[in-house]
Amino acid sequence: MLGVALLGYAFMGKAHSRALRALPELDPPLSPELVSICGRDRDALQAVAARYEWADAVADWHEQVADERVELHVNGAPNALHAAPTIAAARAGKHVLCEKPLGLDAAEAHEMWKAAEQAGVVHACGFNYRFVPAIRRARELLEAGAVGDVVHFRSRYLQSWGWDADTGVWRFDRGQAGTGAIGDLGAHIVDLARYLVGEIESVSATVRAFVPGHEVDDAFAAAIELEGGAIGTLEASRLARGRVNQNTFEINGSAGSIAYDLERFDELLVSDGGAYRAERVTGDWWPPGHGLGWGDTFTLEHARLFAAVAGKAAVAPHGATFEDGYRAAEVCDAIVRSSQSGKRERIDYR
Amino acid sequence: MLGVALLGYAFMGKAHSRALRALPELDPPLSPELVSICGRDRDALQAVAARYEWADAVADWHEQVADERVELHVNGAPNALHAAPTIAAARAGKHVLCEKPLGLDAAEAHEMWKAAEQAGVVHACGFNYRFVPAIRRARELLEAGAVGDVVHFRSRYLQSWGWDADTGVWRFDRGQAGTGAIGDLGAHIVDLARYLVGEIESVSATVRAFVPGHEVDDAFAAAIELEGGAIGTLEASRLARGRVNQNTFEINGSAGSIAYDLERFDELLVSDGGAYRAERVTGDWWPPGHGLGWGDTFTLEHARLFAAVAGKAAVAPHGATFEDGYRAAEVCDAIVRSSQSGKRERIDYR
Amino acid sequence: MLGVALLGYAFMGKAHSRALRALPELDPPLSPELVSICGRDRDALQAVAARYEWADAVADWHEQVADERVELHVNGAPNALHAAPTIAAARAGKHVLCEKPLGLDAAEAHEMWKAAEQAGVVHACGFNYRFVPAIRRARELLEAGAVGDVVHFRSRYLQSWGWDADTGVWRFDRGQAGTGAIGDLGAHIVDLARYLVGEIESVSATVRAFVPGHEVDDAFAAAIELEGGAIGTLEASRLARGRVNQNTFEINGSAGSIAYDLERFDELLVSDGGAYRAERVTGDWWPPGHGLGWGDTFTLEHARLFAAVAGKAAVAPHGATFEDGYRAAEVCDAIVRSSQSGKRERIDYR
Amino acid sequence: MLGVALLGYAFMGKAHSRALRALPELDPPLSPELVSICGRDRDALQAVAARYEWADAVADWHEQVADERVELHVNGAPNALHAAPTIAAARAGKHVLCEKPLGLDAAEAHEMWKAAEQAGVVHACGFNYRFVPAIRRARELLEAGAVGDVVHFRSRYLQSWGWDADTGVWRFDRGQAGTGAIGDLGAHIVDLARYLVGEIESVSATVRAFVPGHEVDDAFAAAIELEGGAIGTLEASRLARGRVNQNTFEINGSAGSIAYDLERFDELLVSDGGAYRAERVTGDWWPPGHGLGWGDTFTLEHARLFAAVAGKAAVAPHGATFEDGYRAAEVCDAIVRSSQSGKRERIDYR
Repeated sequence: MLGVALLGYAFMGKAHSRALRALPELDPPLSPELVSICGRDRDALQAVAARYEWADAVADWHEQVADERVELHVNGAPNALHAAPTIAAARAGKHVLCEKPLGLDAAEAHEMWKAAEQAGVVHACGFNYRFVPAIRRARELLEAGAVGDVVHFRSRYLQSWGWDADTGVWRFDRGQAGTGAIGDLGAHIVDLARYLVGEIESVSATVRAFVPGHEVDDAFAAAIELEGGAIGTLEASRLARGRVNQNTFEINGSAGSIAYDLERFDELLVSDGGAYRAERVTGDWWPPGHGLGWGDTFTLEHARLFAAVAGKAAVAPHGATFEDGYRAAEVCDAIVRSSQSGKRERIDYR
Repeated sequence: MLGVALLGYAFMGKAHSRALRALPELDPPLSPELVSICGRDRDALQAVAARYEWADAVADWHEQVADERVELHVNGAPNALHAAPTIAAARAGKHVLCEKPLGLDAAEAHEMWKAAEQAGVVHACGFNYRFVPAIRRARELLEAGAVGDVVHFRSRYLQSWGWDADTGVWRFDRGQAGTGAIGDLGAHIVDLARYLVGEIESVSATVRAFVPGHEVDDAFAAAIELEGGAIGTLEASRLARGRVNQNTFEINGSAGSIAYDLERFDELLVSDGGAYRAERVTGDWWPPGHGLGWGDTFTLEHARLFAAVAGKAAVAPHGATFEDGYRAAEVCDAIVRSSQSGKRERIDYR
Repeated sequence: MLGVALLGYAFMGKAHSRALRALPELDPPLSPELVSICGRDRDALQAVAARYEWADAVADWHEQVADERVELHVNGAPNALHAAPTIAAARAGKHVLCEKPLGLDAAEAHEMWKAAEQAGVVHACGFNYRFVPAIRRARELLEAGAVGDVVHFRSRYLQSWGWDADTGVWRFDRGQAGTGAIGDLGAHIVDLARYLVGEIESVSATVRAFVPGHEVDDAFAAAIELEGGAIGTLEASRLARGRVNQNTFEINGSAGSIAYDLERFDELLVSDGGAYRAERVTGDWWPPGHGLGWGDTFTLEHARLFAAVAGKAAVAPHGATFEDGYRAAEVCDAIVRSSQSGKRERIDYR
Repeated sequence: MLGVALLGYAFMGKAHSRALRALPELDPPLSPELVSICGRDRDALQAVAARYEWADAVADWHEQVADERVELHVNGAPNALHAAPTIAAARAGKHVLCEKPLGLDAAEAHEMWKAAEQAGVVHACGFNYRFVPAIRRARELLEAGAVGDVVHFRSRYLQSWGWDADTGVWRFDRGQAGTGAIGDLGAHIVDLARYLVGEIESVSATVRAFVPGHEVDDAFAAAIELEGGAIGTLEASRLARGRVNQNTFEINGSAGSIAYDLERFDELLVSDGGAYRAERVTGDWWPPGHGLGWGDTFTLEHARLFAAVAGKAAVAPHGATFEDGYRAAEVCDAIVRSSQSGKRERIDYR
């Protein structure tokens, strides 16, 4: 058994609770024991705790850090609450999973990574899209050389809820969120870029807040250079009407290409030089053609983390570590910096 | 709590086990208690029982029927094992969920329906596609008159595994399976036709077994008439190379149209008379654009069944009952009959 | 030079006029000389004649038949005016191209075919979709065995203008049109079925006129058997809201599959057993990826006909002859017959 | 009648020849008289001249400039031959149509524009994609406010022939071509950006030649700012395996969005705030749903130019002028400049 504490009970709280309950199905080497869930709204917290059978519901995250039953700390709280509880948990010897963006900026993310490393605990950053079967398959094809030398990577993550959102929510508060589309959506595609084609060397970006009352960016656009010489673009927006949750990338190389769109969850377009073929990639959970859902990516994420805790596998490369969280944050910071400087900004990891 | 017994531990056994474990997340009025799972292969059964935390693993389905702890009997066994255990369970006062096709033919399905009715238990047939959010949305649009008077319904369910399958599996054994593509795939689209646009009045069909060694049909094609006057086609095949699990329908009416393809799980095409728009329909489980998976349809199916058992809702119309299982079987029988007679065959419900 | 007369100046008159003017670009062995165009509305006729530089505009088709300058007679008139002028032209020794459906029924089409054969002239039926580059490519793949043994052919041709059309136009007049969706749309897909996968052996069909005031069918649905043992469906409708001009087919075989949709003119889906790949098939008129339009299929149709007249090629198989026009008509007649008889009707060519 | 001279007989020569021959169909106020075509390869030139019925075939472009029969000079020669003949023709009082990119750089393009203006002739730049019916429709929707305030414009033009091309062709020779993907593909999408959403204010770009032996760029990626405050990306590549001729854009605004992909020539995606609907936009040449081809955009381009020469319409805004050719060139120059400087470069029109 592995005792788990979860900080946060809203969107991410629900996603992680569900995944932890579903985890035994994947025959993990350790079984989750749902020790406690933490949040401020007592009634909402109790409801979530009951639904997912968390043993305790607590109001103060320090309780979880101090709780000896807890061996894994999962942080699904708003961004501003990522660093302190996670660092404290790691220092208390607990393994840590923290949602993305890891910190409010690269400095904070770096501190979290170093703290986890020094504590010697297993750490994972919540880049769940690495666990989409079609994206995993893309990585495998790239590793097998199916694309040859990569010359282009382009990705965009487009949503539209920003136009009509209540500006009072934490996601528009700079202090709570750090950034807007950059950390919320951009971090995901930066991580996928790194997972699939390697480090981003530079960004030339423009960041914009369009909607009155938004303290954080609504969108950014960037031209990028990758370590191996490839070039491309990254974009994210919460203001792309017609798009609900489009997370799409395309990779072109000397031998072939790969393209994907999260809105067609199970479909991976693969070119071996000629026309794209539409592969159905549904993983091996069900028979071919019977696909997973968004929520299942969290179950797979926990499966990998639990295997790592049990010493059966490493989190990386198929899961993201705090190092990945930090590295994505450096690229996000460079996007902000480039928008301000008007210059191509190199990513220099500290 | 509601005590549950499950017959079958393979594909359907896994799907129902998973759904039952996930069910509490949907705040059901009753919580599932996983009493026992039944199957013949002792080792495989034990593994599934352990993984999903079934209290008991039993070899003889009669034990489950006799078990007083069991209040709901779920049948995910091969087709030939649908009728006897399900009827026995119903007669023992247990609520029943049986996979599709309900019986080996319409006569057997009718007997099952009547037995459940006479026993006064709640009954549900495993037409899980009624629980795909996009398909539920299609039904709501139809009920709201968005399509006007329906003139066409066309549907096809295409897979390709039949070419290379081991002919020794029960799905190719007439005694075990009854039919092939008809009961396996056709029953699903017949049920969706009935759910969406009403009763099928007649079929003019051709049924074919192409692959040597297959005792049951590989494919059928049918022209149909619907009660309200609409016409259209139904097709199913296990031999459609390039298609892994394509289950698609289109409905045309005087005011608009609706089209859907299961391989684009979250996308519903809706015309209000003019061009189709691609709505993303992901249900209300997650925020918009974060979709469910195939397995989640079983969780929703059980949520409805549990609500029905608790007297909070009826299984129909958004879930399928044994009556629906029987009615689909009559259409399937008519497809076989028409292929043999060379005539348009009316569906006359007994 | 080859002297051409054209009967009809409306939709088809325009399509053929344009093609004849564009023809020299394809280096035909004979150059078209536009002798005369014929129609009843004097003003409209003159306008078309001037625009496309027809030498004469005449009111009576007999004039064209009697005109010694005319060596090719092109018939783009309403269906009821197909047989008499075409037969007269053939008997006068002129080569003939007649629009589809060739006659008002199979008997008339047969008479036209026999007349052309007896006259020893070159004859072509206006099944222009054989000249879509992607469809030609499909045929080549089939001939090369890329699909193996065909088990399924399904096709539908869906439009939506029937709901709101003026019922006074000739296309809704049984005497002028013969049939509705059957001859207008169905004949095209019957021809493509024959071109791609061979003779249709039987049809089990339902035909329906839905809209008050329509003398001819609005739609039909049919299950079919093909000579080689394959089964499938054919459908056509003028009442499919959301569809403007969708002409789509799919062919599944033992080795692969092919799928096409005219609304994606240049895209051919090809499976060599696994996932479909989306080939761009734009022909060799322009560089790859620069596609043709609908109108260009008529230019290619005339290029083949002119080559046949010059003795450089045969019309068939890549163009349709009167025999093809007749054979399609027999299938169309069988669709009507099956709808009335309620039986599977064999196609018995006379 | 309007006497026309054409410089160039290869790809663009064919496209313009065909369009001029087809032009009468569109009832232009002036009819084209094909006076002469010019090129260096005598045999190839003669063949093209004969096919399209050009009266004369000449070897020296000065002859065309000196020819009094010529009233319109069409330049479809390689890029390095755009400026001199076009300027000479304009100074000789001939109207001018020149292919894109207008000059080898913005300075040359500016000189061409000024020369045409000073000569008082009608001038048009060959941005033929403005004449795709779906793109024209996009502009009309934008003008009607369907998208509201534009926040994003993203476009990419991807081909793949660059990997395997003969590096000896003029398109890879810096002296002949000026740039590679930038002028060949990028100029098109820059022009569409300007046509659809207005001036580009700045670019932050990376330009790259990947393939050994290529003197010019194979690809670029750019983040852009638009005059009204919108941001987005532009990309072009000749190395995108799997893409043959993908020219796609998306525009997001406060009220809706529009998306287009040239590989689906007739399909325009339009959001009025919610889900995209797939409009079929086939223009009014044929009945709805019967689409044009790539070559027809040239016919429409000439129709507009001839109307302008006749004083019945202006070339702009639905056709591009030399001013548009120049302005696109300034953006292309800024892309090159930004790649070198590593800075966001403003476009300052001279």
